[in-house]
Parts: sequence; C-alpha cells; structure tokens
Amino acid sequence: MARINKLINKLVVIGVGLIGGSLALDLRRAGQVGTVTGVGRSAANLAEALQLSVIDHASHDAAAAVEDADFVLLATPVGQMGAVMAALAPVLPAHALVCDAGSTKGDVQALFRRHLPGHLARCVPAHPIAGSDLSGAAAARTGLFEGRNVVLTPLPESAPDSIRQVEAVWQACGAHTRIMSAEAHDAVFATVSHLPHLLAFAYMDFVAGKADADTCLQLAASGFRDFTRIAGSHPEMWRDITLANRDCLLADLEGFRTTLDTLISHVRERDSEGLQSLFSEASRLRSQWPGG
Amino acid sequence: MARINKLINKLVVIGVGLIGGSLALDLRRAGQVGTVTGVGRSAANLAEALQLSVIDHASHDAAAAVEDADFVLLATPVGQMGAVMAALAPVLPAHALVCDAGSTKGDVQALFRRHLPGHLARCVPAHPIAGSDLSGAAAARTGLFEGRNVVLTPLPESAPDSIRQVEAVWQACGAHTRIMSAEAHDAVFATVSHLPHLLAFAYMDFVAGKADADTCLQLAASGFRDFTRIAGSHPEMWRDITLANRDCLLADLEGFRTTLDTLISHVRERDSEGLQSLFSEASRLRSQWPGG
Repeated sequence: MARINKLINKLVVIGVGLIGGSLALDLRRAGQVGTVTGVGRSAANLAEALQLSVIDHASHDAAAAVEDADFVLLATPVGQMGAVMAALAPVLPAHALVCDAGSTKGDVQALFRRHLPGHLARCVPAHPIAGSDLSGAAAARTGLFEGRNVVLTPLPESAPDSIRQVEAVWQACGAHTRIMSAEAHDAVFATVSHLPHLLAFAYMDFVAGKADADTCLQLAASGFRDFTRIAGSHPEMWRDITLANRDCLLADLEGFRTTLDTLISHVRERDSEGLQSLFSEASRLRSQWPGG
Repeated sequence: MARINKLINKLVVIGVGLIGGSLALDLRRAGQVGTVTGVGRSAANLAEALQLSVIDHASHDAAAAVEDADFVLLATPVGQMGAVMAALAPVLPAHALVCDAGSTKGDVQALFRRHLPGHLARCVPAHPIAGSDLSGAAAARTGLFEGRNVVLTPLPESAPDSIRQVEAVWQACGAHTRIMSAEAHDAVFATVSHLPHLLAFAYMDFVAGKADADTCLQLAASGFRDFTRIAGSHPEMWRDITLANRDCLLADLEGFRTTLDTLISHVRERDSEGLQSLFSEASRLRSQWPGG
C-alpha cells in the first residue's frame, strides 16, 4: 500500500477543550495526523481526553511535549498564551508551525512578537468561528468545523508556505478559511460577537435588579431564552476578551448607545413612524441574513 | 353512550393564526369544542385554515359569525381589537365568554371597557405566552400550549364563573393559568419580552450602519444568530406593542441604559473587577434560570 503523506505527523494541542479537541478528532478522521499530544493543567480533563481518544498522549509540560512536533495549536484562554509561548521559545523545533485559536487577534499577534520573535515565519494566528458555551475535552466532537469560518490573521513575517499549510489543516476539517488583518478581525468581532455578549450580560444584570425579578424569570419565554443564551458564558473569559479588545468594543458600545438613545427618544415622543422605520430596517436585515 | 358536555359548543376565533388556530386544534383534540368558526380578512388564510381543518366554517363578518357563540377569542393584533369589539357589541349573545390573546393587557382592558361596557362580566383578558416569529393559520399546531403559561388579567367586573371557565378552556390545552393585574402583567412583559425585542432591533440597526456591515454579517455565528432572532419580528406589531406599553417600556429602557453606562464606564477604565462582577452576576442568574 502506498504511503500517503499526512499533513501533520505530530500534533500538539495545548488546551484540550472544545476547539483543540475537535481539531484533533477531525484531523484523525481525515487521516491527516500521526499522533496527538494534549497538554493541559487539569489531570481530570487530560484523562477524559485520553479515554475519549481525543489525544494519544497527555502532558502537563508544554516544553517537553513539543519535541518533534510539526504543528502546535495554542487553544488555551488568551490570558495563558504568553506564558505558554515563553515556555516553548527555547525548545520549539524550527520547522514547527504554531497556530492559535484565540478570539482576539491584535493581542495574540503582540504575544507572538514578544515571546517567539525568532519563529514568526512559522506562526499563523487564527480564529476558528466555532465557539460554544460548552468547554472541556468532553465537548470536543468530529465535524465541529464543517462549513464554519476560520479567520487567519498572518503576521507580516508569516511565510506564505506557513499560511498555506495552516489553511490546509483547517480545510481538512471542512472549514472555510479567510485571511484578514488582525485590526479588521478585531473590529468585526467586537461588533458581531463581543458587543452582543456585553449587551446580554448588561440586560441580565438589569433584570436581576428589578423588584419583580422572580416573576419576570417565571414568565420569561423563548424570546428571552435565545436573547440571553450568551449571558450564560464564562465571566472570566469574557472579562479577558473585553479588556483585550477594549478599543474596538468601547467604540461599538458608544455607537450602540447612540442608536439606543434614538430609540428611547422615539418611545418617549410616541413617534410611531420613527419606531416603524427603525424596526423595519432591523427586521429586513435580520430576515435577509443567510445564517438565520 | 352518555353525552359528555363540552366546554364550548360554538367557538369563534377572530384572527386565525398561530394562537387562535392552535387553540381550536387543541380544543378539538381534547373533545371540548363542537364547531369552530374562523373570522378573518384574508380569504387565502381562511381557505388554508379550512383545508387544514383548523376551523369548520369561515367568515369575513365577525358580527354574523358570533350568533349562538358561547366562546369568542379575539386573536387579532391588538390594534384591530377595538373595531372588532365595536362590531360585536350589538349582537354578542349575553352568555358568550370573550377572551383575547393580546400581549399587552392595560390597553386591552381599556378597549373592553369602551366597546363592551354591558358585557364585562363575561370578558376575561388573557395573554398566552406562546408567541413565535411564525404567523398565519399554517403556523397553528396541536400542543402549542402544553406546559406554557397563560396569564389571565380579569377586570374587576369579570364574574368569578367567567374566570373559572376561561381557565378551564386554557387548561384543557395543557396550559398553566396564572392570574395577575394588568399593571403587573405589563410591567413584567416590558422587562422580559418587549425590552429584549427593542434591544435586538436597536442592535441590528447599529450593525446595519457600520462601514464593515457586510463582513460582519458574513462572519457572524451562533451567538449573533440567537441574540438577534427576535429582531426578525414583525415591525408593525412591535411598533403597536411599544406604543401600547410605552410607560413601562420607557422606564425599562432608561433603567437598562443606566446599567449599560456602568458597563461602558468599566470598559473605558479597564476595570477588571467591575467587569468580572457584572458578568458573573449575569452568568449566575442566566445559568440558574430553569427555562435555559
């Protein structure tokens, strides 16, 4: 039987959760990976990842794990990536590609520059758009990335061949890859992800402070359920994302408040035409959105 | 075979859509209704309701249809209910119960007082909490009200026996009935339904105005999808709800803006503890909510 080259011989996933674990499962299903080593701080999570065959080997030591690696995915929270990169810097094999899965990219680019300045040609920051309120190795599943977008935000130093190889890895999982600048990425995700999360958090806090909050929660139904789903997200993770993307998010928060003030003014003045115009534009845009 | 009394001999549903049509289907399945007459303005919708056996008879004329009726459900948009009540006033059988399905209750109570002042003992305003972005007779389905809340907001003049009968009708569809004042109802639904709709509309309008709106919509994913689902709702209906519940909604909009201003201030000042505290409270409340 002819030997078929795999995209990756040794994959190291640092942070074996929804994203990192699913990448490992998909690459294995596609026959595109030799062995998978998972690195993490939680022994229980690593044990579960082994038991579910998400990974072949487990380690608490990122530096030891990357020996002979040809692809390293940093899938920890962004707040831990700097320390991981610093640990890898002295031992990372020269040919190893390094990709991350952080949901902000300007700050991750700065971390790559600070901690891996000699390795930037092989570093390709990325954001797989496949988040969820689930986490941990048990949340990993094959097919997670099928049809999803993965945004690559290469550094100016990222080699064209590195970009092509990282694209091939995500495409092998069924994802659509797309290249953007880190600045454009962070502006877009402030608008379509970070702002809705902050509005959902603020709305739940507002409800919590109402005198009739208990009755409200008893009678809330499906509109409330969907609108607030993302308010159940992880508080520390969203604190970090908020601080990491602070400038874009602040601009969007203030822009949203201007729209909200217009709406409040229409309600105060009983401006039927103003309300209808605002609601119609929103409803038209939402109904045309292909992801709806 | 013993003859079993049905709750309703002749049901008239004015506005044969999701709510009115589903009530008819559920009561028929429960063996609790003799015949169902549907009243509406759209011949196509009535034809579809007949074809789907949602109703037995169809009419464009509410006044003619209520002859011999013992239960009349007003399931039109609230904006049309005054005209319907005025048409029914001269011909409504004295024993006929009148219930509505409007999502605001203070304004519907005022309409009952204005148009049916001699019939208030048999009028019981109600709000079945089973809305959807679907509408029309084709959206009707058996089981829609199973386990759902139906809030009754009786008038002081509503006879205890009328309230009991209306409760029995909704309970026959599997709903939980709950009695509240119209004022408490409108305050609660401003908070858990009307405010989220307005925030979702405002958010979509904000996105529409961004220079990178097209890229935003291409990369928006499941968080955006759920958060904005209610922004696809019917603009005229929500204009009317907003104006009908203007006072409660204005208070909530301004209360929400105060919370939002606190959040914006935390982001501006990079207040990590303030952000974490606000997100944690929201996440805790959402995670504890049994409907999630």
